[in-house]
Amino acid sequence: MDNPDVFTLLKALKADVDRVIFDFLPSTHTTPEIDLLYRMMRDYPSRSGKGLRPGLLLLFNRAYGGNDNRALNTAAALELFQNWIVIHDDIEDQSDLRRGLPALHIKHGIPLALNAGDALAGKMWEMLLRNREILGAEKAMQIFEEFLFMYSQTTSGQHIELGWVSAARWDITEEDYFNMCRHKTAWYTVITPAWTGALIAGAPRATRDIIVRFGMDLGVAFQIQDDILNLAGDVDKYGKEIAGDLWEGKRTLVVIDLLGKCSSDERRYVLDTLNKPRESKHPEEIGEILRLIKKHESIKYAARISQALAKNARQIFTDSIDGAIIPEYRKIILNLIDFIVNREL
Amino acid sequence: MDNPDVFTLLKALKADVDRVIFDFLPSTHTTPEIDLLYRMMRDYPSRSGKGLRPGLLLLFNRAYGGNDNRALNTAAALELFQNWIVIHDDIEDQSDLRRGLPALHIKHGIPLALNAGDALAGKMWEMLLRNREILGAEKAMQIFEEFLFMYSQTTSGQHIELGWVSAARWDITEEDYFNMCRHKTAWYTVITPAWTGALIAGAPRATRDIIVRFGMDLGVAFQIQDDILNLAGDVDKYGKEIAGDLWEGKRTLVVIDLLGKCSSDERRYVLDTLNKPRESKHPEEIGEILRLIKKHESIKYAARISQALAKNARQIFTDSIDGAIIPEYRKIILNLIDFIVNREL
Repeated sequence: MDNPDVFTLLKALKADVDRVIFDFLPSTHTTPEIDLLYRMMRDYPSRSGKGLRPGLLLLFNRAYGGNDNRALNTAAALELFQNWIVIHDDIEDQSDLRRGLPALHIKHGIPLALNAGDALAGKMWEMLLRNREILGAEKAMQIFEEFLFMYSQTTSGQHIELGWVSAARWDITEEDYFNMCRHKTAWYTVITPAWTGALIAGAPRATRDIIVRFGMDLGVAFQIQDDILNLAGDVDKYGKEIAGDLWEGKRTLVVIDLLGKCSSDERRYVLDTLNKPRESKHPEEIGEILRLIKKHESIKYAARISQALAKNARQIFTDSIDGAIIPEYRKIILNLIDFIVNREL
Repeated sequence: MDNPDVFTLLKALKADVDRVIFDFLPSTHTTPEIDLLYRMMRDYPSRSGKGLRPGLLLLFNRAYGGNDNRALNTAAALELFQNWIVIHDDIEDQSDLRRGLPALHIKHGIPLALNAGDALAGKMWEMLLRNREILGAEKAMQIFEEFLFMYSQTTSGQHIELGWVSAARWDITEEDYFNMCRHKTAWYTVITPAWTGALIAGAPRATRDIIVRFGMDLGVAFQIQDDILNLAGDVDKYGKEIAGDLWEGKRTLVVIDLLGKCSSDERRYVLDTLNKPRESKHPEEIGEILRLIKKHESIKYAARISQALAKNARQIFTDSIDGAIIPEYRKIILNLIDFIVNREL
């Protein structure tokens, strides 16, 4: 498998994106309080991430004949989107860790972290406004529209997921889960990166529909793999609390599958535990749920679905994208699909 | 005093703005979870507010010869700004009441409310993008820039204020407080409304600097009056918890003045009380601080400063704005200044 190469490629692209981000974000301010705000805004961007989303954008831009110089600003804005939204996400999920370090609200409290997330979101829009000079007003506005659509999908998906937890709902079908992932993950992880990259390169409008179908499947596959790593990953690689989703009571494909397979006694135990607030849960209870997940092979099941979705995405790529792009990027994008569903981080 | 007329005028303008907002915001969705998100997004906008900011925008637009039809969309976006930012603000300040009703995070919990604030912010940007059709791409982008500048000033000001609370800092001078208010309040309450209104009407660029000076003074005057109402207002009119700023430990001009005047014993009592987390404070302690504020006449002092700033704003208006606008709006804007510093809500 060529995945190590994909990893190296993403890393190189991310270095370019980071340069743009850190050139752009304000660094110091004479008012000490605002200086702290600036440090908080640079905190998550300076933690090492995979750079998958800006990488996808730049690779699709290249694949459709585009030049990095025209796409880097948008790739950087996309990376800022990921960064500010996870500041808010960490507050909403009460997550303690992000990329191996304490979450921003753990370091500075919820009020300052929430506001720093808002401030960073402002920088994302400022960055997109710079596209006027790089791409002209018309294309800059189109990208704005794409970001707004992604933004609306992501907040809707986030709302669906948080709403289930808040209403203690467990009557979630696999289709409910897929629908939530399509909103929460597919747009901002695959569809918008790939399509805005292609758009900047000048790809025809019809390409959008194909990338939407491609990204729906690949995005959900990504989310399932993320859920799996959350339960079975290595904390040093994954950078978040292992089994954090169980502590947070999240509805994942793994848990939905478990609930469909386990005995009524087991089901009661799982639901009683997951419905408790985080601070009332015990490590042994989480351990018992992990044991049941293993017993009922729910991770294996979820991995199978993720692989099947990736296969669909590969098929759409081969049928409808492959022929329209520069040949040398065919293999690279196929490798990227493998990376997304087989990654360990 | 003609203030009742200003109130009636603002009310009529707000009705026009509300019509645009509720035409624009999504109302129902077949997915019940997303339907709840939409209801949450419409919650604050449907509570009766003063409509001061969109009113200022529309009046300055008219005063410079503009037509409401071209400015209403931007006024509505400004009203959305106010609404989503106070959703986040209420979480950051742990406020229980907003416009006389429970705050959104009290009704739905912090995670859903935080996310609904983000979703509503997205709608604000979508609304501003519609200015392309109304005002053309160039002016639409200029307004975007103005909103981004306002956004950055507001989040910086909010950060300064929250940072003082978080660091338990009380070595705040009056100038520190004014600086915080200029960031947190002046831009989004006066400068950006007035200037974008004028901009849409076609006012020359040089007008911006004048409105900035005008709005700095009037914006700080507004904030001081808001602080006073928070301590001395009528909850039915004001719509927020009375003395909420003391419960939240906010640094206001009233408290800064009190700390400068009171005895060292009194000072220790005030600081010990204000530094305690909200849930450890007792009503009698807050009552005692209110008594000290009365004893040292700190509300009177703050009101005097607010009036002096309003006088400056009036002077700038008479010297540099009055001559450039349609005569019938001179008296209206002067009345509006009076309303801002003498209002009881």
